[in-house]
Amino acid sequence: VARRYLRARRGESELEFARVVAFSDGVFAIAITLLVLTIEIPEHTLSIYDQLLSERGDLLAFALSFAVLAKLWGFHHRFFAGLGEFDQGLIWLNFAYLAFITLVPFSCELIGDYYADPVAIITYAANMAALGIVGVVMTEYSFRRDLVKPEVAAERADQTGPANWIVPGIFLASVPAAFISPFAAIAMWLLIFFVNRRSRSRLEAE
Amino acid sequence: VARRYLRARRGESELEFARVVAFSDGVFAIAITLLVLTIEIPEHTLSIYDQLLSERGDLLAFALSFAVLAKLWGFHHRFFAGLGEFDQGLIWLNFAYLAFITLVPFSCELIGDYYADPVAIITYAANMAALGIVGVVMTEYSFRRDLVKPEVAAERADQTGPANWIVPGIFLASVPAAFISPFAAIAMWLLIFFVNRRSRSRLEAE
Amino acid sequence: VARRYLRARRGESELEFARVVAFSDGVFAIAITLLVLTIEIPEHTLSIYDQLLSERGDLLAFALSFAVLAKLWGFHHRFFAGLGEFDQGLIWLNFAYLAFITLVPFSCELIGDYYADPVAIITYAANMAALGIVGVVMTEYSFRRDLVKPEVAAERADQTGPANWIVPGIFLASVPAAFISPFAAIAMWLLIFFVNRRSRSRLEAE
Amino acid sequence: VARRYLRARRGESELEFARVVAFSDGVFAIAITLLVLTIEIPEHTLSIYDQLLSERGDLLAFALSFAVLAKLWGFHHRFFAGLGEFDQGLIWLNFAYLAFITLVPFSCELIGDYYADPVAIITYAANMAALGIVGVVMTEYSFRRDLVKPEVAAERADQTGPANWIVPGIFLASVPAAFISPFAAIAMWLLIFFVNRRSRSRLEAE
Repeated sequence: VARRYLRARRGESELEFARVVAFSDGVFAIAITLLVLTIEIPEHTLSIYDQLLSERGDLLAFALSFAVLAKLWGFHHRFFAGLGEFDQGLIWLNFAYLAFITLVPFSCELIGDYYADPVAIITYAANMAALGIVGVVMTEYSFRRDLVKPEVAAERADQTGPANWIVPGIFLASVPAAFISPFAAIAMWLLIFFVNRRSRSRLEAE
Repeated sequence: VARRYLRARRGESELEFARVVAFSDGVFAIAITLLVLTIEIPEHTLSIYDQLLSERGDLLAFALSFAVLAKLWGFHHRFFAGLGEFDQGLIWLNFAYLAFITLVPFSCELIGDYYADPVAIITYAANMAALGIVGVVMTEYSFRRDLVKPEVAAERADQTGPANWIVPGIFLASVPAAFISPFAAIAMWLLIFFVNRRSRSRLEAE
Repeated sequence: VARRYLRARRGESELEFARVVAFSDGVFAIAITLLVLTIEIPEHTLSIYDQLLSERGDLLAFALSFAVLAKLWGFHHRFFAGLGEFDQGLIWLNFAYLAFITLVPFSCELIGDYYADPVAIITYAANMAALGIVGVVMTEYSFRRDLVKPEVAAERADQTGPANWIVPGIFLASVPAAFISPFAAIAMWLLIFFVNRRSRSRLEAE
Repeated sequence: VARRYLRARRGESELEFARVVAFSDGVFAIAITLLVLTIEIPEHTLSIYDQLLSERGDLLAFALSFAVLAKLWGFHHRFFAGLGEFDQGLIWLNFAYLAFITLVPFSCELIGDYYADPVAIITYAANMAALGIVGVVMTEYSFRRDLVKPEVAAERADQTGPANWIVPGIFLASVPAAFISPFAAIAMWLLIFFVNRRSRSRLEAE
């Protein structure tokens, strides 16, 4: 009964739905803009060129994290666009998702400063794996509770298949790899930008 | 007369109402995202694992404060969804509420760094008690001034009863407890996540 | 001709108008939330009570600046609610206004740390005076260009009278006062919370 | 086929379009407000006047960067107001644009602290040139893919002509100039505020 009370169609309570989406967008926008604070300003006047050069880790971490947050925002954008209803459980899952989004500037700064250290790499990988896992759980949850729009529900087999575990799986697999070589772990992450094959093939099948 | 001038139905001035809500959501989103700045980055390359471990206070404070702000956003979300009108007094109460929301990252950093110190615990408890008290005052105010929607007005006995004082009461009671043991005070706070019994029973009664 | 092209009725381009308002609200929300960063966290474990006590300047500056930004947001909120049209000039005036809004956390931190120093007091007073002046100019501009809604245009004599210069005037007058005594200057500012007499009497006259 | 799926008319998916715009506005608002963090607070009580005076670089960099971000927000505002459709490619171009927007507080702090150093000047110029280039590419892309509204499409010759390259061109030209004299480079930038001649003449031709 409680569950039914808390469940709401988008049309019936568009303002509430819009607030959840706007709040999430706010968190994404702030997290992505705070990334810039992870790039350190040189502290003394002598040879700021050398200092900037020694911060190339920061700059690469910024670029990687910006691209990751942009991609995750795209996922979040499409996910919420496909929702026809939402309930309290989904709101909490969304908060868990956003908690790991707000941790990205921390992981980004850690990896920018200590990219040769397995602990930094593992922290970053764990952050990303957590985002991947919560994202898959949100998707599964919304299909099981019939929260998705009818036209999206037809894609169930496609969207909740084992292929969804590839991205969090790669991040989890990179944890032991980081002990052997931090750079091997980073190389595994770059794989992810090429595994949207699945989603592309889904679109082409239409 | 002044009061009447400043009072507005949501339907009549939806943009004004939306601005108050959007502004509040903005403050919530920024405060919750600034929490990440309270987690310190290790300062030297040696044994960042040990350094991260020594920041488990920061991480716990982050997790607690994120959950608290998410729960308070839920309260704020439901409260404003139940409003049919608003007036200048409510806008000022809302600002007082938001002032204590913006203090959460400060209290969070203090407790993360000095969790064994009664002063840090008391600051955090006072911040939370203030949020609880202003929240109850906002609720009482909106019922007394008939600002709530008709369907919500029927729940008056339920929503403005003494049970609302439980959460701020626990935080206030934890202040003397903190002098005896900081950990006893923290244990009292964790109680709060289990006292939504009242709201749950209200829902089930429907 | 150019002027006419850039001028837009709210109804015709509600999304554009909403973007200007939302952008302004975003800047207000971020500036008000960044105020918390001006309260310093004690740096060592010993006697954090004494350290917090010595930061009472920070806490008072936070409370004052939060109240000021809330009051200014109220002004901005009412001002934009009264607009029926907007043009490029108003957008630029609004940016000038927002520039001084974003400077408030800086002035707040300065005054919190150095409240006994005339330079800090003068910086704060200059920031506030600039906000007051740009606010009055925005109001005058919107009446002269007939950008306000017809029902607001009738209040022209009331809203663009010399009484509007009281608030920036007090801040400007506090600049020489700060050289004699910083506390005299602060006392002058507190006067401002009592000079909304004018707006109150306007409302009561209705 | 994929391309068609991802392409959306504004009317059909106004919420999605509004999210992209709101997200961009959020990033702009945060970046412009974070500029204030680049102005350093004096660290000791003695002669804070002298310290503030020595930060005139910070203050000028703040003023310049605020004006630049305001101007770029105006461009972004007009660009999105002219769009009738959007697609995935445009969303990615927009993210690239926002990435360079979030870098502005970094470049601003660098130039505020080291305005006499060619490396700081070049970093700032490169940031601005990148924004100019991505802005022109976004404009060209939206015309080529017919994403603009019909009434805007008529202005194609005017909006995608070589005159668009003037602003990024001046910034690129200021890079070699910075090696000779940082101040010569800064003087070149100030030219830009006078080269909106083109857009003004376009408006007057109407």
